[in-house]
Amino acid sequence: MAKEKAVFYHAGCPVCVAAEQQVARALDPARYEVEVVHLGEARERIPEAENAGVASVPALVLAGQAFHVNFGASMADVKG
Amino acid sequence: MAKEKAVFYHAGCPVCVAAEQQVARALDPARYEVEVVHLGEARERIPEAENAGVASVPALVLAGQAFHVNFGASMADVKG
Repeated sequence: MAKEKAVFYHAGCPVCVAAEQQVARALDPARYEVEVVHLGEARERIPEAENAGVASVPALVLAGQAFHVNFGASMADVKG
Repeated sequence: MAKEKAVFYHAGCPVCVAAEQQVARALDPARYEVEVVHLGEARERIPEAENAGVASVPALVLAGQAFHVNFGASMADVKG
């Protein structure tokens, strides 16, 4: 079975780190290939995140759906 | 290795169902024992959720930390 892609977008904030360690790392590695994207560093991926419906970070995009996990920063803040 | 307990609290709302299907079910079953609690039905568990820091549903409590996944309803709404 091909793994589904999961993308975890964050911006390095403390709320982001907690969510990455607890939620993103808790996904089933047998079913999901998890990519962690730091939008402060990979700014060219901001449009891709916004297109997936990401309005704030940290957020997890699973099967094309954006799940915002707690609230670290808005995308407006990430864009600066 | 003993499995860690993960509790997913929801209230039956559409946002809750999406989060349950995508996020709660995506956790690694080798590491987590996931319990799904419908707070509208199991109202006696509302204090337990609040003590864990749950302010809105859907929420996932992992390792004692509450992660709010998108926003379905506030705990005030759940309590009615």
